[in-house]
Order: sequence, then C-alpha cells, then structure tokens
Amino acid sequence: MSAGAETALIAGTGGLPALLAAAAPGMLLCELDGFPSAVPGAEPLRFRIERLVPFLDALVARGVSRVCFAGAIRRPKIEPEMFDAQTALLVPRLVGAMQAGDDATLRAVIELFEDWGLVAVGADEIAPDLVPGAGVLTGTVTATDEADAKRAAAIVAALGSVDVGQGAVVARGLCLAVESLPGTDAMLDFVAAHRALHPAPAGGLFFKAPKPGQDRRIDLPAIGPQTVAKAAAAGLSGIAFEAGGVLLLDRAATIAAAVTAGIFLWGRAG
Amino acid sequence: MSAGAETALIAGTGGLPALLAAAAPGMLLCELDGFPSAVPGAEPLRFRIERLVPFLDALVARGVSRVCFAGAIRRPKIEPEMFDAQTALLVPRLVGAMQAGDDATLRAVIELFEDWGLVAVGADEIAPDLVPGAGVLTGTVTATDEADAKRAAAIVAALGSVDVGQGAVVARGLCLAVESLPGTDAMLDFVAAHRALHPAPAGGLFFKAPKPGQDRRIDLPAIGPQTVAKAAAAGLSGIAFEAGGVLLLDRAATIAAAVTAGIFLWGRAG
Repeated sequence: MSAGAETALIAGTGGLPALLAAAAPGMLLCELDGFPSAVPGAEPLRFRIERLVPFLDALVARGVSRVCFAGAIRRPKIEPEMFDAQTALLVPRLVGAMQAGDDATLRAVIELFEDWGLVAVGADEIAPDLVPGAGVLTGTVTATDEADAKRAAAIVAALGSVDVGQGAVVARGLCLAVESLPGTDAMLDFVAAHRALHPAPAGGLFFKAPKPGQDRRIDLPAIGPQTVAKAAAAGLSGIAFEAGGVLLLDRAATIAAAVTAGIFLWGRAG
Repeated sequence: MSAGAETALIAGTGGLPALLAAAAPGMLLCELDGFPSAVPGAEPLRFRIERLVPFLDALVARGVSRVCFAGAIRRPKIEPEMFDAQTALLVPRLVGAMQAGDDATLRAVIELFEDWGLVAVGADEIAPDLVPGAGVLTGTVTATDEADAKRAAAIVAALGSVDVGQGAVVARGLCLAVESLPGTDAMLDFVAAHRALHPAPAGGLFFKAPKPGQDRRIDLPAIGPQTVAKAAAAGLSGIAFEAGGVLLLDRAATIAAAVTAGIFLWGRAG
C-alpha cells in the first residue's frame, strides 16, 4: 500500500487491473471486499459499499486526487446492518441508480467520488502505452485503409448493438469476416483460408473496438504480437483499432512484429 | 408468349425469374429492352421505359391482372426522343422518384402499374413451394430454437443495416458465426471446424433472411440440400429462415436431406 499516491486504482476482477498496475506503478491499490483483484504485490486498501464514506475520506486523507476504476464488480452483497451513519444517508441515491442498471450504478458511484473531489480517469490516461490513443504506431495508412476502417467501425458498431463481436475484416469496402464467439484468431484464420481459396480484394484491414455499450473501465479488447502474425498471414495491410479503446499487449513486441510483417498499426480516433 | 395469361412476370437479370417461371408456368414473360432475362422458352414481350403506357395498355388488353417483378434492372438508359406522348406525361413523376433512389423508383413504377389496375404480387404468392411461408417443413422446433432464431434475426437485421450478410449461427443465445463475403457454406464450415476444436453449446441453428433493405422482388437468398448437409455437419439442430423471404431450391431434395439428417426446416414469421 503506497502512502501519498496521487491515483487510486479501484481494482475489480479480471486481467485489466494488473496490466494497469504494472504499466503505471505507484497507484494506491483498492479492492472492494469480496472481489479480490489479480494485482500482485502490495496489500490493497479494502473497502465496503456500506462504509463508502469512510473509504472516500481515507482516500482524500492519503492525498489521492484521481481514481481509476478497472475490472469487474458484479452485484456486491449489501449487509444493511454494516452501514455507517453517513453512508446510510447515500443509500437512496445508490439504490435508485442500481435499479436503473449497471451503467447508472457506475455513474452514480463516480458522481459520489467526484463529490469528494476525486476525478475518475480512464485506462488510457493512466497507461497510454498500454491503451494507445489516436495515431499511427507503425506503417502507412492509405485513403483506402481509412475508408475500410470507417466501414469496419460501422459494422462493429452495428454488431455491438446486438451484443456480438468486437472486430471485423474489411477489404476495399467488402466485409470478409466478422468476429463472433470463436474470437479474433479464429476470424483471422478464416480470412487466411478464404484468401487462399477465392479471389478477393487484396489488402484490407482488421478493425478492433470495444462494443458500443461496453464500459471501458471494466474491460477492453486486446491485440498483441499474435494478432499481428494472424493479420499478416491473412494478407491484410494492417490493424486499426479504436483510439483509447483497445489494450496493446506487449507493445514493443507487437510493434516489432508489425514492422517485420510490413503491416500498419493504427489507433483510429472514434 | 402466352395469350390470356393472368400474371405477367416482369423479368430482369439474375436467377430468380427463371426459377419463378419454372415454378409457376403460364405467366406472360416480359423483359425490359436491354435487360435479357435468363428465362428459357417463350419469346418475351419486350418493353421500354419510354413506351411504358403502350406496354401497360398491352398488358391490360391481354387480360393480365397481376404482375410479378423479379430480377435486377440497373439504371436503364433513357432515350428522350423515344418517348410516346402519353408516357412523356409520366416523366416528371418518374424522374422525381428516380432521384429519391432505387426503392422510390420501384414504388413509383408499381404505383403506375396499379393505376392500370395491375396488382404487384411477390414471389411467395406466385410460387409458395419455392418461397415458403410461415411453418415448420420438417422436424421439431423447441422453445430454445425459437429464442435462438429471435436472436439470430436481430443479428442479421443489425448486419443488414450495414449491408453485411444474410445469415448467422446462434446456439443457446451465443453467436457462433456471422455470414460475410465468403458466404453461407464457408460460415457453416467455420462453425463445424470450431465445434470440433472448442467446447460450445450443443445444437443451435442457422438463420437466413433477406437484408432488411433488400428488395425481395429483385433477389432472394437461397437454401438447398447443400445447406442442409453443411448445417448438419456443423452440429446444428436446424435451419430457420424468414417466411416468404428465402428461396427453397429443390424443395423435395432439401426436405428429404433434413429428414435424413434429423434437423428441422422452419419458415419463421418475421
């Protein structure tokens, strides 16, 4: 537990908190009781919903000014007898939000943190190397690629509206594949197999983005060296991803693989 | 050219007109000059946009009361000097519709036919065996299948909004595959391959429908014995299709294949 940390990492379950903690050392690790994070090292500051006000006070007392929510917290069990007097006063506000759904609950929690002067920041602000923003990391993006990425983004957005996939392959406007349950690697293998069998437009790109409704604080889709290898094997010109919305695993190795394969890596501004 | 035919088949290019002509013999075959249909046999009654009124008069004089538009007609060239006086009077109406897009043009043309007392009918009315309506053709559709078909229909509708695919595979709510450029067979092969590799929900179905914006008069997606074989090889429980929106090629062979494979064929009411 680091004293005087400027940023608190409110870590839920899943892989994202540990990646962020490794990418941005020195954050104050906090865990909701009953939802252990997979972040190794320092003992976390544990808190409970029923004692949220003392927890917020403790963060302020430690000099925390920013909080980063990362990882999943699914329906924490609330023990009515555990509320302190001040947190109890917040119950109507929280219950109203909880009844309106997960997003509303999270917004209400963020507003509470803001009432204490704590600013919620995204993973891309904490660890820009891990969650790249807009810009070309390597290679050349042509006007054709830009058009293909625009089309792919529209396809992924449409799929997201029915809770399917986070990726698509588009070449010169034609959709060669769409991601579904079997995942990115399976989709890129599919493209490689059909490229070999059928004449199809050359080039094209793989586009990856979070689902439109996906809370970026809980999880993000990821790309890495393996994605680059599969994309290259599928004959694609590059990989485009939504700026600030995708984890770049092993950044150095991923960029090096793209350079070797001669494909681009492009963080596309939404 | 059959005299006294009650129904005129306004045949454009592509395979649909010939399938309809074979399924419902005795229709009066009509072709737009410059857009030969692939319908074998009788010499067609040819017409031109610039002489639409004489053509409509000729249909009425032959006792035609219904017209079925089938096949594609892409941007016919208009020769201004060929208009007869009466058709020339319709030009403002047609030009306005043409500027509003293909759908508006077709609606305007259908309205013109209706002004002559001719009723436009769909392929499913002309040839219900070829374009099955609502109902289970073979096998048993469970409540799980109904839920999967509903989800698959929503996925295909979302894809259609971005002009991708006409099919999806869903098993117990999970989307196993989405159709893209490589087509239905490639998608079902993909499902078969991943079923073999990964544990996934058993059963599931392939759902096929026209794109939401697709004009059913121009073309329809098709299923046949090959589709049944691929769906069975992919471990699916059946094939659902949008009632009145899909061609059933070689109906007897397709149903027989489904009976043998033990999978259902279900025309789902949109």
